[in-house]
Amino acid sequence: LRFLVPQSGVLHIKTEFGKLQVSPNEICVIPRGIKYHVALPEGPSRGYILEVYNGHFELPELGPIGANGLANPRDFCYPVAHFEDCLEKYQIFTKYCNQLYVATQEHSPFNVVAWCGNYAPFKYDLAKFNVINTVSFDHPDPSIFTVLTCKSALPGVAIADFVIFPPRWMIAEQTFRPAYYHRNVMAEFMGNLRGQYDAKQQGFLPGGASLHNCMAAHGPDLEAFQQATQVELKPVKTPDTMAFMFETSLALGVSPWALTESGTLQSEYWKVWAGLKSNFTPMKK
Amino acid sequence: LRFLVPQSGVLHIKTEFGKLQVSPNEICVIPRGIKYHVALPEGPSRGYILEVYNGHFELPELGPIGANGLANPRDFCYPVAHFEDCLEKYQIFTKYCNQLYVATQEHSPFNVVAWCGNYAPFKYDLAKFNVINTVSFDHPDPSIFTVLTCKSALPGVAIADFVIFPPRWMIAEQTFRPAYYHRNVMAEFMGNLRGQYDAKQQGFLPGGASLHNCMAAHGPDLEAFQQATQVELKPVKTPDTMAFMFETSLALGVSPWALTESGTLQSEYWKVWAGLKSNFTPMKK
Amino acid sequence: LRFLVPQSGVLHIKTEFGKLQVSPNEICVIPRGIKYHVALPEGPSRGYILEVYNGHFELPELGPIGANGLANPRDFCYPVAHFEDCLEKYQIFTKYCNQLYVATQEHSPFNVVAWCGNYAPFKYDLAKFNVINTVSFDHPDPSIFTVLTCKSALPGVAIADFVIFPPRWMIAEQTFRPAYYHRNVMAEFMGNLRGQYDAKQQGFLPGGASLHNCMAAHGPDLEAFQQATQVELKPVKTPDTMAFMFETSLALGVSPWALTESGTLQSEYWKVWAGLKSNFTPMKK
Amino acid sequence: LRFLVPQSGVLHIKTEFGKLQVSPNEICVIPRGIKYHVALPEGPSRGYILEVYNGHFELPELGPIGANGLANPRDFCYPVAHFEDCLEKYQIFTKYCNQLYVATQEHSPFNVVAWCGNYAPFKYDLAKFNVINTVSFDHPDPSIFTVLTCKSALPGVAIADFVIFPPRWMIAEQTFRPAYYHRNVMAEFMGNLRGQYDAKQQGFLPGGASLHNCMAAHGPDLEAFQQATQVELKPVKTPDTMAFMFETSLALGVSPWALTESGTLQSEYWKVWAGLKSNFTPMKK
Amino acid sequence: LRFLVPQSGVLHIKTEFGKLQVSPNEICVIPRGIKYHVALPEGPSRGYILEVYNGHFELPELGPIGANGLANPRDFCYPVAHFEDCLEKYQIFTKYCNQLYVATQEHSPFNVVAWCGNYAPFKYDLAKFNVINTVSFDHPDPSIFTVLTCKSALPGVAIADFVIFPPRWMIAEQTFRPAYYHRNVMAEFMGNLRGQYDAKQQGFLPGGASLHNCMAAHGPDLEAFQQATQVELKPVKTPDTMAFMFETSLALGVSPWALTESGTLQSEYWKVWAGLKSNFTPMKK
Amino acid sequence: LRFLVPQSGVLHIKTEFGKLQVSPNEICVIPRGIKYHVALPEGPSRGYILEVYNGHFELPELGPIGANGLANPRDFCYPVAHFEDCLEKYQIFTKYCNQLYVATQEHSPFNVVAWCGNYAPFKYDLAKFNVINTVSFDHPDPSIFTVLTCKSALPGVAIADFVIFPPRWMIAEQTFRPAYYHRNVMAEFMGNLRGQYDAKQQGFLPGGASLHNCMAAHGPDLEAFQQATQVELKPVKTPDTMAFMFETSLALGVSPWALTESGTLQSEYWKVWAGLKSNFTPMKK
Repeated sequence: LRFLVPQSGVLHIKTEFGKLQVSPNEICVIPRGIKYHVALPEGPSRGYILEVYNGHFELPELGPIGANGLANPRDFCYPVAHFEDCLEKYQIFTKYCNQLYVATQEHSPFNVVAWCGNYAPFKYDLAKFNVINTVSFDHPDPSIFTVLTCKSALPGVAIADFVIFPPRWMIAEQTFRPAYYHRNVMAEFMGNLRGQYDAKQQGFLPGGASLHNCMAAHGPDLEAFQQATQVELKPVKTPDTMAFMFETSLALGVSPWALTESGTLQSEYWKVWAGLKSNFTPMKK
Repeated sequence: LRFLVPQSGVLHIKTEFGKLQVSPNEICVIPRGIKYHVALPEGPSRGYILEVYNGHFELPELGPIGANGLANPRDFCYPVAHFEDCLEKYQIFTKYCNQLYVATQEHSPFNVVAWCGNYAPFKYDLAKFNVINTVSFDHPDPSIFTVLTCKSALPGVAIADFVIFPPRWMIAEQTFRPAYYHRNVMAEFMGNLRGQYDAKQQGFLPGGASLHNCMAAHGPDLEAFQQATQVELKPVKTPDTMAFMFETSLALGVSPWALTESGTLQSEYWKVWAGLKSNFTPMKK
Repeated sequence: LRFLVPQSGVLHIKTEFGKLQVSPNEICVIPRGIKYHVALPEGPSRGYILEVYNGHFELPELGPIGANGLANPRDFCYPVAHFEDCLEKYQIFTKYCNQLYVATQEHSPFNVVAWCGNYAPFKYDLAKFNVINTVSFDHPDPSIFTVLTCKSALPGVAIADFVIFPPRWMIAEQTFRPAYYHRNVMAEFMGNLRGQYDAKQQGFLPGGASLHNCMAAHGPDLEAFQQATQVELKPVKTPDTMAFMFETSLALGVSPWALTESGTLQSEYWKVWAGLKSNFTPMKK
Repeated sequence: LRFLVPQSGVLHIKTEFGKLQVSPNEICVIPRGIKYHVALPEGPSRGYILEVYNGHFELPELGPIGANGLANPRDFCYPVAHFEDCLEKYQIFTKYCNQLYVATQEHSPFNVVAWCGNYAPFKYDLAKFNVINTVSFDHPDPSIFTVLTCKSALPGVAIADFVIFPPRWMIAEQTFRPAYYHRNVMAEFMGNLRGQYDAKQQGFLPGGASLHNCMAAHGPDLEAFQQATQVELKPVKTPDTMAFMFETSLALGVSPWALTESGTLQSEYWKVWAGLKSNFTPMKK
Repeated sequence: LRFLVPQSGVLHIKTEFGKLQVSPNEICVIPRGIKYHVALPEGPSRGYILEVYNGHFELPELGPIGANGLANPRDFCYPVAHFEDCLEKYQIFTKYCNQLYVATQEHSPFNVVAWCGNYAPFKYDLAKFNVINTVSFDHPDPSIFTVLTCKSALPGVAIADFVIFPPRWMIAEQTFRPAYYHRNVMAEFMGNLRGQYDAKQQGFLPGGASLHNCMAAHGPDLEAFQQATQVELKPVKTPDTMAFMFETSLALGVSPWALTESGTLQSEYWKVWAGLKSNFTPMKK
Repeated sequence: LRFLVPQSGVLHIKTEFGKLQVSPNEICVIPRGIKYHVALPEGPSRGYILEVYNGHFELPELGPIGANGLANPRDFCYPVAHFEDCLEKYQIFTKYCNQLYVATQEHSPFNVVAWCGNYAPFKYDLAKFNVINTVSFDHPDPSIFTVLTCKSALPGVAIADFVIFPPRWMIAEQTFRPAYYHRNVMAEFMGNLRGQYDAKQQGFLPGGASLHNCMAAHGPDLEAFQQATQVELKPVKTPDTMAFMFETSLALGVSPWALTESGTLQSEYWKVWAGLKSNFTPMKK
């Protein structure tokens, strides 16, 4: 399946199930084997795509959060059937067993007159996410920001989670508010859709991405650390921002193009942590 | 089992597993069949007791809340073994099949020199609860305040939940912040341990209790409604308060003593909703 | 909850969630605690009501039947919100802990302007049931006719199943086609909505009912037995008929009214089996 | 494990657990690691073998089909112990980690005098399958023809299903009776054991096979389409036929031998759909 | 269902499924609703009957014990069909909703010529139980002696377990070998079939019974305690003995007949513990 | 994760969670991604390491064994936090996607001042294992010796089990006491920590290892067979011994070094079974 996260530029997606208009701050999931076509009515688009070879994205079990919270089922939009009754030449590109194939046909593949069922593409507007978090102290796991999850057969181990960091109130008291320094058995691929991410306010531009693979240590940069440890902890509304994370139990590879050819790798990225010092003062005995 | 919620006065509880000092704002659970004795070192105590004939109280599965949040396992306190090596006359009161029995013995029942296992009494300080709630909009289900749950054999249907309303930040925007008007298939028995409960600020005194049985409609009183609909929705820290709820899928009966003999029934309780009016203005066509 | 099965006469049901028109050959389920009012626009109605104190009716897991078959989810109809903005006197009757109560209020309880969620009344047209059965030999269990099931906490043990015997092709070869003679650990309450039931073609009139409680032996009457053992087994379409069964793991009591006062008890019902004889011829050795 | 489906010629299979005679229209499953020898007493045999590296084949949960239907447990035949008390030279061929090995020993491996347990080879006669299907309308999923399933760790996702299309009555009304046009996330490998398959009556000979891998669209050929849309829908007993499907969630590769060297590939297979035309007439507005 | 445990005298049990001869040291389970008749060919019989109103007895999941151990499935004996082709008068006694009913019929109820399925009576010889226990130290829970269990809907909470104490080697070292002093949330009904029970060697005669209801403390009597604490712990084979326990999560009532009328109550039973003294010597500090 | 089984020589293991001293007859598990350093205070060490790329080791569900038995939770030892507040050069070796990497840093990685949670290294003393086995007859599955298991997503199929053969009483009567001759769908890697293993008393030295991969037949050698079939079956305490098994559902490869370069392969190992003869004497008819 394809999980599309446009960062700039509107997508007009035609699928066998109908049409979807997907704008930045929305996401779109297209199941495996479904034919689709993307047009860019307003010019170039840029964004992120996650491809998963197995399973389905679904809403997480909410547990004590109860019947409402996080992404609500009623906010997911499915297309209505739309058909083209035309005889034109179409090229169909297919990825199968990691190879690309192309076929030609003389009529539109978008000729479905009606449909029912639940194996269909959908979109979701991230602004409708009901953000839940601490209203007392501590920094909960980012799983509390899960929009959709693609489960593996092992309970608690996701093939992939889609997690967002939307505008929200931060009010935790007597706490280090940004994400603590950590290692994660899951790989964290982050992207920024809009504004500044609170754990790295400089250098993580919209359209950029960071990757911390399995057990790679990371956390706030020096600047974020200093601010979080010195600021007075009043209620603060984050500015208009939207970062996200694809979190996966599989190790993610990076293409040679991304590592070298693209010229976009931030080779000095590690320096954002360089100035962090030991702040530990052991007790005198 | 007995679930003790003292509201005033310290309890010195001696059990077969050791001693527990339980103060107001703490709770204590004593499993079925465990002998215990309660002393009141500072004078009279007052509070609430829930008796459950089946099952165990356990922490809820946290779901997307993740590894930390709500009540943390490390904050539950178990006694260390304590023994009395004395030969005195003891009376043992037992409740069995809804009858009380008494037996006499010539030595202390509190003679356990060491123990291991997990069927033991414990206490928990409600101030250590990591409160989670919306940091955006809407009013989540009170299940998000669950401290402990006693599950039935039907998934999602608790024999009893213990839920608290502790001090916390309320920041929900574009929302009616108090509990919405509702009917609940579970019975809601509420008590107030300290301060004012935000959906009923007058007349719900510490030590008091309210009961809304299965499908009895309820919600904020007139005063709370008016305030919630007129106040500007800035971040607000609730004052020092602690209300709680025993929520159960069983219908709760009320004893004749509570209904009449005690003289404490608020027979005019229903009037707190009496002034609520229809605020609905249908659209003109 | 109430499970309504009208046999004659249309029901106009007003609920807090909106209006439902329920005709014979349709069923209607109203969840616990939901206020409703039934009008009879075409005169008297007659039918069957099942009251369940716990759980919910849901579609059975289809197993190998796959994604389609039996009752399809898309055929269940839920009301849209409907409100009455009037100030009239209403009497609300409530059944609670097996007692009836009445309350009076000065405005309509049917004042819900909009709703979302899944705890709502619904109706279903039995003609839309996709009947599955043998297309080879043998007589499958009546569970294959399950429309809705209300599960208990024990897998495989239903609090109640709603099962129908709709018009269908009977083609089983080399088989005794009617239900075989059996005892059932579940109680079988049958009703007839229309036409003739194939295992008892005489004396089981529309609007009538039969009850075979836990482990009461039963099966086709003499006439049905004779026909089934003598007729040539060609494909046969059952005539226009609709019988149903409430099957429950609980023993069903019968009211004194039904047993005596109503005068409708068929006291000679047992005679339909009286003529059945042993057809067994042991092999000579 | 090996799943054997002979299409012509009897198999005399000697295993460590005893002997099995497997004829066409029967299937045989030999668990992993069990030594066996196949003799062909009546001359050459031809058929299909599925090899699965993990899991076991088991009967599907029947769901609402109830206690009887599809393949009945009592119809599976296990061998009784049989031993050879001889000292002869034997060659044992083993496939391990996708390599073939051979070992030599001086006595028969078929020397088991008695056994108990449930890890044993078995056979099943496909004629004993109790075929279930619609007796009203629509075309159920082929899962309704499942004989045996080999589950993966993901509920609902089989490593492999064995599905048959046996003689049966087809009586669906107001319906397109053959399999509808579809794409399937599982790969469909079909074989024909006897007679004509109803969705492709020409060109799919006994002993032949077709493969529609993951998401490859397929359905009835032109001839089957024309017949199904024009014929009067009376009850029809399929002629003597037996096609089957290995359906798997894994993509199936095809060997170079099958693709080219064997000379048996039907390179014009796609033409059976070539004449299908759009039959859609949009409504005038 | 009826769970029969004869202690003396052979039972000839005729059931609708065939005949079972059940001798002391064997047990027999007859499912609910199955007609049966018991003859006593060798004169009076004596024993124990457990009646369960719900569920089925099944083998426990063995966990790490693996594929063999405790009661093996192959040792359970089911009857073959047996019929009586006679016309005689029969009285059928039925217990329904705790009332006894009697019906008369003119032919034998034992007229089943053949049967298949798994809802049938069976017997088991307790001598075939593969006893598992510690071969190092400590005294495992008596659940390790479980022959059959009747599960409730709550995992780990049985409606009833049937547990036996058969002949076995006792080799635990550095241990108090008899059952430790304990209270049990389940009720323990014990019977003795043969020989001496090791935790109470005097006064617990074959045919006798003891009952320790929920949370009633108990353990070895004075004599057993003294022997167990003074004897050298060499491997010891228990003598020929067979005690058993019905253990249930429900409280068991005792009939007035058993308490008084029968004259068999051991009113001085408590005295077996009377001589037990405190053996505790606190450490000097 | 790393599962360490030292056979000779003490390990001083420094981890991010604190220090562990692990001696022969103890095992240690270090979770994935945790930095650690091993010192050998008493000179060279030798032992076994299992590396698992997925999952966690946990205690097996005990089933009827009950609340106590096998490895008890309270006997697992976790380190307390220990930190080094020093600025020295450290090299960190990491294995990632089957490659080794090294990084250099200027301060100690062992600088954790306090921790809570359950993802931490631990050790366990094998002498504390409560050995359970038959006290009657037969030879139970080695699963009864399971210390820890690492589950896969398929119930009953472990990624790896750690199983031990500790000192214990063997008392099975009328039985072949050693492991019977068998093939196993799981690979069995055995090591010997101390003394003689009872199914191969010669040639399986402490520090040695044997591997029987999936379905490779094996069992006692000639000497063990002869002794077990001729000795009188009295209770026998095994001598001081400790062998273990890593049992896995995955096939284990052997490195070229182990096969040839090390010079330690026992190329004549197969000869220990060479003298075994057929002892079968068929019945005369």
